Amino acid sequence: MKKFINSVDAFLGESLTGFGAAHGDLVTVNLEPAFITRAGGAASGKVALVSGGGSGHEPLHGGFVGRGMLHAACPGQVFTSPTPDQILAAAEAVDGGGGVLFIVKNYSGDIMNFEMAAEMFGGDNATVVTNDDVAVEDSSFTTGRRGVAGTVIVEKVVGAAAEDGADLETCRALGERVNKATGSMGVALTSCTVPAAGTPTFAIGEDEIEMGVGIHGEPGRRRMKLAPADDIATEMTDAIVQDLAPAGGSRGILLVNGFGGTPLLELYVIYNAVAKRLADKGIAVSRSLVGNYTTSLEMAGCSITLTIADDEMLRLWDAPVHTAGLRWGC
Amino acid sequence: MKKFINSVDAFLGESLTGFGAAHGDLVTVNLEPAFITRAGGAASGKVALVSGGGSGHEPLHGGFVGRGMLHAACPGQVFTSPTPDQILAAAEAVDGGGGVLFIVKNYSGDIMNFEMAAEMFGGDNATVVTNDDVAVEDSSFTTGRRGVAGTVIVEKVVGAAAEDGADLETCRALGERVNKATGSMGVALTSCTVPAAGTPTFAIGEDEIEMGVGIHGEPGRRRMKLAPADDIATEMTDAIVQDLAPAGGSRGILLVNGFGGTPLLELYVIYNAVAKRLADKGIAVSRSLVGNYTTSLEMAGCSITLTIADDEMLRLWDAPVHTAGLRWGC
Repeated sequence: MKKFINSVDAFLGESLTGFGAAHGDLVTVNLEPAFITRAGGAASGKVALVSGGGSGHEPLHGGFVGRGMLHAACPGQVFTSPTPDQILAAAEAVDGGGGVLFIVKNYSGDIMNFEMAAEMFGGDNATVVTNDDVAVEDSSFTTGRRGVAGTVIVEKVVGAAAEDGADLETCRALGERVNKATGSMGVALTSCTVPAAGTPTFAIGEDEIEMGVGIHGEPGRRRMKLAPADDIATEMTDAIVQDLAPAGGSRGILLVNGFGGTPLLELYVIYNAVAKRLADKGIAVSRSLVGNYTTSLEMAGCSITLTIADDEMLRLWDAPVHTAGLRWGC
Repeated sequence: MKKFINSVDAFLGESLTGFGAAHGDLVTVNLEPAFITRAGGAASGKVALVSGGGSGHEPLHGGFVGRGMLHAACPGQVFTSPTPDQILAAAEAVDGGGGVLFIVKNYSGDIMNFEMAAEMFGGDNATVVTNDDVAVEDSSFTTGRRGVAGTVIVEKVVGAAAEDGADLETCRALGERVNKATGSMGVALTSCTVPAAGTPTFAIGEDEIEMGVGIHGEPGRRRMKLAPADDIATEMTDAIVQDLAPAGGSRGILLVNGFGGTPLLELYVIYNAVAKRLADKGIAVSRSLVGNYTTSLEMAGCSITLTIADDEMLRLWDAPVHTAGLRWGC
């Protein structure tokens, strides 16, 4: 295992401490239990969005704490759900009377621990579960579909609504609506290595790719030979469009997301292929995001996420955001 | 070679087309010859910053074209200097009467081709050569020190001054001053693979790292065994501080830059170590940037860049910027 690390035990704490030091104007990092809040603290009358999950997907979720997006994030150990006490402490730290909206990716451990935290939490709360991965039903750590990079779009759009003063039920319903309008699919060229394991999560041949991979290296639809970028992008785009079945003349937010080990040059080759395919299908790309937003440590690969967006979603997407991982308008 | 690619010949053109499609609100991409300009076109009375270099370091330079930073960038083939005709065409496209400032990383091919373009160019122009890499004097493609991630800081600070209306000589002198105040050093855990070559640029053992590596995989100070992150970060920080020899009470802009294949979690472990070491040396970190800003394709590794900044540099650093790779204040 070749990583910048001092010890497996200290790894996450040191990384969070570095994150807090680098972005002290934006966030406050608590280590015991581990959670990240906006530097400003509680939400003061507005809905506070709280998300979290296993670490290793950065900037998701800690990199999305800040104005216009999350109020708090709870990082578990790498690829391990955060514990209920982390989630509870984060919710209590940021609840400002407007209630807490939990945004949870659909993995059994995350669902269980967020549910336990929600039960222990005294304040008003609701939950949005994201399950945008169209690749497979059920998986290593999931019943139903996995929640993947579409979570970034849910957090951005709902975070803007919360910032505007939307109430808890409005935010929850909007989150459900964005999640339903969003489909994703990923592909891996290589595995990644979880520090505590020390060896690659899965084996893959020098000429093989995993089509439909999950963000922890879970199996996808099939193992196949490496193919031209256009063929890979077309298969993923078609799977998403088939799932979303958008009406003619639809507009979308398109995210081409790197898993951590793929250069931007290659992500733009994929973007080029996806944009052409969507144009052929009569779907206009209204907003684009290309880069590493929901990673799988150093995995080489990418995912494509498409949200079929209405005017309200586009307006909220464009609203100011100021986080370590996503920033515009301020 | 396992990459998202259709063919080696089409790779750069398809990637640039994707870049132009994803960021059509910001940039215009020309393919023959290849250059990227701001969507708004020429600089209209202000100094136009033109940079460029081999591709494979994205977001450098194309990702820094936009308000408050570059007016144009010329991407060469991967790890290959842009040609004089590319650079000339870019300069002519963006010169709005205020003159053109070329920002060139110190590699012999880049220097030669930018010089030829400057000679052919009819308008007022000046050049700033960046050579921030403190690791080695002379290298595979360089006489003197290499220009690396410190170039991002030069482009940001001088771009803000040009946006403010500073004249050509003022911008040139500021660029020289920022470059002199900036030191960088890199370390590689793995090599990268240039598509046209198809095999890794250099061989490195499973337990080895290259201390002081260049952004094309050029040799650094020495090949050594993998060490704890704190030791690696300390060696790099000390080399930079020794080179810059800042006065007591200095403030800095700190960039912890990923080479493309290293997760953010690890970059923040490095940030944590560097920030502590700088504090021990009495240097205050006033601004921080952590992420992939000057990459070496999918190389695992990182570099540390420190600019000892005065009030003017910090003000210009904070000024609004709107590019694909760096954005704040708008």
